[in-house]
Amino acid sequence: MIKIAVDAMGGDFAPDSIIKGSLKALSEEKDLYLYLYGDEPQIQKFLKKHISSELPESLQERLSIIHTPHYLDMGVKNIREEIRDNSQHSMFLALQAAKNKEVDGVVSAGPTQALILASYLIIGTIQPMKRIALAIIFPSLDGRTRILLDAGANIEIKAENLLLFAIAASIVAQELFNIETPIVKMLNIGSEPHKGRNLEMETFDLLEKTPHVLFKGNEEPQNILYSEADVLLSDGFTSNMIVKTYKGAFGILMKNVKNVLTENWFKKIISKLLFQKKLQNIKKKLDSKEIGGAMILGLNKIVVKAQGNSDYYSFYNAILKAKKLIEKDFLTKLSQKIKN
Amino acid sequence: MIKIAVDAMGGDFAPDSIIKGSLKALSEEKDLYLYLYGDEPQIQKFLKKHISSELPESLQERLSIIHTPHYLDMGVKNIREEIRDNSQHSMFLALQAAKNKEVDGVVSAGPTQALILASYLIIGTIQPMKRIALAIIFPSLDGRTRILLDAGANIEIKAENLLLFAIAASIVAQELFNIETPIVKMLNIGSEPHKGRNLEMETFDLLEKTPHVLFKGNEEPQNILYSEADVLLSDGFTSNMIVKTYKGAFGILMKNVKNVLTENWFKKIISKLLFQKKLQNIKKKLDSKEIGGAMILGLNKIVVKAQGNSDYYSFYNAILKAKKLIEKDFLTKLSQKIKN
Repeated sequence: MIKIAVDAMGGDFAPDSIIKGSLKALSEEKDLYLYLYGDEPQIQKFLKKHISSELPESLQERLSIIHTPHYLDMGVKNIREEIRDNSQHSMFLALQAAKNKEVDGVVSAGPTQALILASYLIIGTIQPMKRIALAIIFPSLDGRTRILLDAGANIEIKAENLLLFAIAASIVAQELFNIETPIVKMLNIGSEPHKGRNLEMETFDLLEKTPHVLFKGNEEPQNILYSEADVLLSDGFTSNMIVKTYKGAFGILMKNVKNVLTENWFKKIISKLLFQKKLQNIKKKLDSKEIGGAMILGLNKIVVKAQGNSDYYSFYNAILKAKKLIEKDFLTKLSQKIKN
Repeated sequence: MIKIAVDAMGGDFAPDSIIKGSLKALSEEKDLYLYLYGDEPQIQKFLKKHISSELPESLQERLSIIHTPHYLDMGVKNIREEIRDNSQHSMFLALQAAKNKEVDGVVSAGPTQALILASYLIIGTIQPMKRIALAIIFPSLDGRTRILLDAGANIEIKAENLLLFAIAASIVAQELFNIETPIVKMLNIGSEPHKGRNLEMETFDLLEKTPHVLFKGNEEPQNILYSEADVLLSDGFTSNMIVKTYKGAFGILMKNVKNVLTENWFKKIISKLLFQKKLQNIKKKLDSKEIGGAMILGLNKIVVKAQGNSDYYSFYNAILKAKKLIEKDFLTKLSQKIKN
């Protein structure tokens, strides 16, 4: 019996795609219990309108709706103040349920920075971790799953924190993606051992010493898409810059290629017939920057961040990720490795 | 009368393309005097073999060859030691000539990090600058010239240094690219004012206050290729990561697009007929990562770093850059703006 709180109001297509994704998860995972936090009238309305057949009883009894008077506006700037002054948001209450051990984990498609900070403030870290990291699945063209962290939870960080992030991400790769001994590499300006800032040099030394990860040295960012690494490590500032650079480079290059391929009606037809589908496949692979959800690691509970533009299927995938991490007892495994 | 020392032995195609580029510069710029530092027998041999017609006298008298017993091996790891123990390299002697005021500037296609460190140690900084920056011309698809700095001279840096870099690069953009009031933006994880690390926040405040640059705030790295900025500012670590990420993203995407376009003989023919030329144009534009030479800014002399794989034309361009900065009295203009 796995209990997960769902922020029904987070994301661009809430609550609709959240509810649909949740129902799909419930119908396939028989030991799953979901607690939808959000505006009950809206949720009930959607259920009545779109789920034409009555929900089977076995599913109904595993779905709870907890009415919350508010939900987080994208415009909210100060999350600390918001938690203090206005804690009745769907996201905050879902996190509070995890804190109170009413559920084992939380899934939200709400604003990333808000979820990171709120989960840190409400749930807190798993000892001895002091910091939490956003671990995303980096786009891939070779079908391999690579975790990139910290993808933006910390602007400035110490080597000890990065070491703990690497350990946590390695366990995720083991449990979630069935990689027996995940390879960890650190993003750096050169592949040789003593490259980078003090942060990279210190982290390098710690990673070389730890028995808890298989560290294979530095990785330069031009190799991210075909790295041997399963886990790519960097601070939140640098990772964010890298992810944005990738996004920009792909976007503009794809646009320019498209312009060349469709510059007149004749070329447009030829391109459509011969190339369009496969080029769209490339684009699709690179677009899904957080395939089925990123993880917030270092918390005392499982929290998965679904993409803001999640459709029902990708929200369903985010729920599955959270469920698997709970089933596999991720937090106990992490705790054992980092306690000393 | 402009005197420039040329490191004839640096780069992948030295001394051949260096000599050819130098001769082209001499034949077009009648007030230019070049001092080629390198292996005289090799240089003479090339001149005899490839320059079939006698060099016109007017050109000969503006070309000097200074024999240097050594030149820098790509494998040299410790430049400090090398300068101390073995100063007779073509690159070091060319820099020494600038230091001794025998020439006004230096152009070298030698290893970037070696040139940065050697010019810092041999020539020194222009007061009150304490640090130097590598300023590259970022690839562009819109034909606009954008300077990115620091592109890798400093791993860690302070806000005061970045401010001085911005001032220096603005003058370069004015003098070299005829941009009346160059726009400066800082690369950052968000476009709002108080984003980033302490470094970005402090630099932001300094840039807002200075009368010497037109600062238009933060720029996220996905926008580099079509930014309104003429000067993009960042620390050497981050810039290096961004440049490498771009390089990697373009490389792998171009490869994947090519695979789609040439997956069988029929598609190969169609692509070649209709698209190849224009796609190659895109690739070409993005490949030339330091179009005609990067500048090392903050030194007490003009030093231009030509690309390691410079052909004669791109080395010629690097010489022209150095010449123009000298003619326009870049160092005096910089000095006036930063002295207080």
